[in-house]
Amino acid sequence: MGKNFSDFFLSSACMIRMASGWFYLSCLLLGSLGSMCILFTIYWMQYWRDGFAWNGSIYMFNWHPVLMVAGMVVFYGGASLVYRLPQSWVGPRLPWKLLHAALHLMAFILTVVGLVAVFTFHNHGGIANLYSLHSWLGITAVFLFACQWCLGFAVFLLPWASMWLRSLLKPIHVFFGAAILSLSIASVISGINEKLFFSLKNTTRPYNSLPSEAVFANSTGMLVVAFGLLVLYILLASSWKRPEPGILTSRQPLLHDGE
Amino acid sequence: MGKNFSDFFLSSACMIRMASGWFYLSCLLLGSLGSMCILFTIYWMQYWRDGFAWNGSIYMFNWHPVLMVAGMVVFYGGASLVYRLPQSWVGPRLPWKLLHAALHLMAFILTVVGLVAVFTFHNHGGIANLYSLHSWLGITAVFLFACQWCLGFAVFLLPWASMWLRSLLKPIHVFFGAAILSLSIASVISGINEKLFFSLKNTTRPYNSLPSEAVFANSTGMLVVAFGLLVLYILLASSWKRPEPGILTSRQPLLHDGE
Repeated sequence: MGKNFSDFFLSSACMIRMASGWFYLSCLLLGSLGSMCILFTIYWMQYWRDGFAWNGSIYMFNWHPVLMVAGMVVFYGGASLVYRLPQSWVGPRLPWKLLHAALHLMAFILTVVGLVAVFTFHNHGGIANLYSLHSWLGITAVFLFACQWCLGFAVFLLPWASMWLRSLLKPIHVFFGAAILSLSIASVISGINEKLFFSLKNTTRPYNSLPSEAVFANSTGMLVVAFGLLVLYILLASSWKRPEPGILTSRQPLLHDGE
Repeated sequence: MGKNFSDFFLSSACMIRMASGWFYLSCLLLGSLGSMCILFTIYWMQYWRDGFAWNGSIYMFNWHPVLMVAGMVVFYGGASLVYRLPQSWVGPRLPWKLLHAALHLMAFILTVVGLVAVFTFHNHGGIANLYSLHSWLGITAVFLFACQWCLGFAVFLLPWASMWLRSLLKPIHVFFGAAILSLSIASVISGINEKLFFSLKNTTRPYNSLPSEAVFANSTGMLVVAFGLLVLYILLASSWKRPEPGILTSRQPLLHDGE
């Protein structure tokens, strides 16, 4: 019995180490993909769309794709994965909760600045707001993100909520976290598509002749999709979730509260 | 001990009944949403885009949105949920596997006919194929769907694969199933967006003035998103997954193979 128990402990520890190894490899891939998503969007706007400004012109619009990809996809995706870090599996949860909330707040601020960029550009040029399906879906994603952050803060960070309520809401919080990321990716894809149709009409090389800008921006969209799918995989893969208490050789007792 | 055991059995049976009740309610909502997605797309094409034909004209293109929404979203989503039916939890799995594969095959056939519609229209009118990000993402989703179906058939339906291989591949199969649905939804959203920009340019009421067609088609896109999220919720909610053997009062022994 004692030998079986120690075998179980050793094999569990071994499994956790193996899972951690793959996890860090995935994080490396995730970091590279995320950086490429942001850098490619900046390069697209800088090289083919003549860069950035903050004056209500089309150069102000150019901040919109960069900030939405950075905020709603890359920072949001990274912030979602805080509880998948093996370091967060042991010890008190509060610092990790604060990190999770702070990173998401940064993502939300980038997102809001990205929205200010497009609304100011539209209002300055007399262009209608919120008419395309891209904008309907995007604004829904941002609204849900705001609700999710406030509800998460109220239930999982403030001390009033019972363990029962936290356990009840945790799977809903995780599901909506993944759902908002999926909506953001669909918004980014439709946004890149729309932008290319706008920018490349009435040119000598229109979108349907696949000029280098189109190939580059399409590839950026596919990178965003790959990044989003990798985040969802890491989020949902069971071997990267906090193991049940008892399997871990914890240095400190685990807190049994909901995330 | 005996009493605890029977209490456990009763509470498990009660939990399964409750979960089943919510499941059927969600299925009712899912069926309604799915039907609305298809009917709204048909109505859009019939009422505002002058209906259907199979002759290489724009009326042939009109089959494309209908068949892609029906195949890659509604039938695909429904087919994915076969193993969430409580009836599939007891008894032999083979009939459910065959149903899962057959429904997905139907979804795939609708998808291929939808692709034939758009490629024929393009080739007939001298329009380039596969240049937009919508088409890049859409064709990737269809390619992954084909790979997923063939791999699923080879590993989970043909008898050669070992239990070990099935257990290893099952979570990957489930993840890619959900991922392909997410890609399809992003493709549908960018497709509706693109179609509205094409159809409503050079009209007295362009897309940015939100004519009734735009409101209707945007709403159809939002319905597709709602349907997709509900499928993903049912697929991933743990209380609707096949319970661990032993919890169920099964009439027949459970087969312990991978799905």
